[in-house]
Amino acid sequence: MSKIAEQIKIPIAEEMLLFEKRFYESMKSKVPLLDRITQFIVRRKGKQMRPMFVFLTAKLTGEISDKTYRAASLIELIHTATLVHDDVVDESYMRRGFFSINALWKNKIAVLVGDYLLSKSVLLATDNKDFDLLSIISRVIRDMAEGELLQLEKSRKLDITEEVYFNIIKQKTAVLISACCESGACSTNADDETIHKLRLFGEYTGIAFQIKDDLFDYNSKSFIGKPVGIDIKERKMTLPLIYSINNADANKKKWLLNSIKNHNKDKKRISQIIAYVIESGGLKYATSQMNEYKEKALDILLSFPKNPSRDSLELLLNYVIHRNN
Amino acid sequence: MSKIAEQIKIPIAEEMLLFEKRFYESMKSKVPLLDRITQFIVRRKGKQMRPMFVFLTAKLTGEISDKTYRAASLIELIHTATLVHDDVVDESYMRRGFFSINALWKNKIAVLVGDYLLSKSVLLATDNKDFDLLSIISRVIRDMAEGELLQLEKSRKLDITEEVYFNIIKQKTAVLISACCESGACSTNADDETIHKLRLFGEYTGIAFQIKDDLFDYNSKSFIGKPVGIDIKERKMTLPLIYSINNADANKKKWLLNSIKNHNKDKKRISQIIAYVIESGGLKYATSQMNEYKEKALDILLSFPKNPSRDSLELLLNYVIHRNN
Repeated sequence: MSKIAEQIKIPIAEEMLLFEKRFYESMKSKVPLLDRITQFIVRRKGKQMRPMFVFLTAKLTGEISDKTYRAASLIELIHTATLVHDDVVDESYMRRGFFSINALWKNKIAVLVGDYLLSKSVLLATDNKDFDLLSIISRVIRDMAEGELLQLEKSRKLDITEEVYFNIIKQKTAVLISACCESGACSTNADDETIHKLRLFGEYTGIAFQIKDDLFDYNSKSFIGKPVGIDIKERKMTLPLIYSINNADANKKKWLLNSIKNHNKDKKRISQIIAYVIESGGLKYATSQMNEYKEKALDILLSFPKNPSRDSLELLLNYVIHRNN
Repeated sequence: MSKIAEQIKIPIAEEMLLFEKRFYESMKSKVPLLDRITQFIVRRKGKQMRPMFVFLTAKLTGEISDKTYRAASLIELIHTATLVHDDVVDESYMRRGFFSINALWKNKIAVLVGDYLLSKSVLLATDNKDFDLLSIISRVIRDMAEGELLQLEKSRKLDITEEVYFNIIKQKTAVLISACCESGACSTNADDETIHKLRLFGEYTGIAFQIKDDLFDYNSKSFIGKPVGIDIKERKMTLPLIYSINNADANKKKWLLNSIKNHNKDKKRISQIIAYVIESGGLKYATSQMNEYKEKALDILLSFPKNPSRDSLELLLNYVIHRNN
C-alpha cells in the first residue's frame, strides 16, 4: 500500500506524523512487561487505515482539532485491543507475518493487555469529557464482540443466510470503520445529518472491506498473511460459499455441507470446495455485492463538495476493494 | 455466608432483591449464544459482596437512588467480565465449584463475552451520563489488568518485596471493593471528603480481603474451591511466603527460591514449603498485617454516626477476615 498510502495521506501528512508520535507516547505504562508488549505492538503497526479515515473525515467536515487526535487514539486503542484479544481467539495463525502476541506471550497476558488497552481508551475519553466519542466506542466494543459471537454460533450450525452474513460483517468489521468516520465528523462538531452520512459512508466501506477480505480465502495470489482456505477450515461461512450453497441442487448442497462439517481439515477437499465455489459463481456474486457497497459509499462521498480530503477518501475507498493484501 | 449475609442485608434487603431482578434483565442479549452464557453466569452468582458494599455505603451517606442501582450494575458487569477473562487467565482450575466458563465454552468465547460485558458496563454509564462512575470503573479495569500483569511478571523473577506485594493486591483486588464504596457514595451525591473516606475504607477492606485469600493457600480446612498450595504451584508470591523468604538465612532462602522455581509441581516439596512458612512465622505475620488493615478500615467506618448501615458494614468487614471460604 505504501505508494498509494503516501498519496492518500497528502492532505493530512503532518497530522498523521504527529498522531503517530502522540499515540506512541500514550501507550507507555509503568509496568515493564506491559510496556514491552505495547511497544512491540506499536512497532508492528499496519496500514493505518483507521486513523486515515478519522483525519480525512475530520478535514472533510471542518478543522482538525485536539479532539480529532483523541478520536484517532481511541479507535486505535480499541482496534489494538481487539487484535490482541483476537490472538487468543484465533489460536494459531500468524498475523501480518509476525508471530502473534499469543504465541510469544501466552493467552493470559493477551487477555490482560487487551483489557488494559480498552480501559485506556475509555479513560482517555472520560478524562476529556468526550462523551459523544465514548458512546461511539462503547457501541463498537459491544457490536464487535456480538458479531464475533454470532459468527462462532453460526459456524457450528452452518445454516447461515445472506442476511445473517451481512449482519455479522456489519457488527464485526464495518462498525469500526463506521466509527472512524462518525468520530472524525464529531471531532469537528459537524451537524447531525453530516455525522449520519459519514457513519453510513463508513459502514458501506466497511462492508466492502470485509467482503474483499473474505474473497482472499479463494485467491492464492494474495498475500494477506493468512493461508487460502483457512475460513473453510475454521467453518467461517462467507458470502461466496453462502451463495454457492444456497444456489446448489440438493445433492451438491448435501456434499458441500458434509464437506465443511466433516472434512474441513482435508486439504484436497478444501480445494474441491474452492473450485466449486468459483465454478458456480459464488466468487463473482460476492465481487458484485462488494462493488455495490462501494458504489453506495461513493454516492454518499460525492454529495460532499470536491476537495483534497474527498479525493483522498475516494482513493482510500478504491484501495479497500482493489488491495491485494 | 448465608446466615451472616441475611443479617448484613437487613437494611438493604428490598433493594438487593430488586437489584438482582434488574441485573438479570440487563444481561439479556439478542445473540442466543451470548444469552445462554450470561444467564449461566448470573445463575452461578456468588456471595454478592460487591452490591452489598455499594448499597450499604449509599445508605450510609444518603438515599439509595436509581444511580445506586446503576453503580451496582456497573461493578457487577466489570466483576463478571474479569471472572470470565480470568477463566482464560487461570487456565484450569474450577471456580466456585462449577466448571469454569473456559472449560465449557473455550477460550475464544470467554474473551468475547468478557469484552461484551465490559462494553455493556461503559454503555450503561454513558447512556445515563454517569461520568463520575465512568471514571471510577475505567480506572478499575486499568488497575486490575495492570495488577495482574505485575503479578505475572513478578512470578517469573521471584524477587518480590512486601511493597510490591501490597501494590499488586491494591491493584488487582482492593481497587474493586474501593470502587464499590466510592461509587455507592457518589450515587448519593456525597461530598468529596466523604467519598474519599469511603474509597479508603474500601481499599483497606480489599487489602484485608486479599491477604485472607492468600492465607487460604496454607489452610487445608478451608473450602474456597481452590486446592491448597496452588499459589506456590503457580509461583504466586504471597505475603506469608515473602515474609518467610525475606527472614530466612542465606541457605534456607536459596532452598526456598530453588524449590519454588524448579520444584513447584512437586507435591511433597510444596508441603515442605508450606510447613516452613508456618514454622517461620509467615502465616502469623500475614495474619497480623490483615488485622492491621481491618483496624484501619474500622477506624474510618467508626467516624460515621452509628446506624444500621454502619453496623452492617462492620459485620461485612468482620466477615471478610473471618470467612472460611
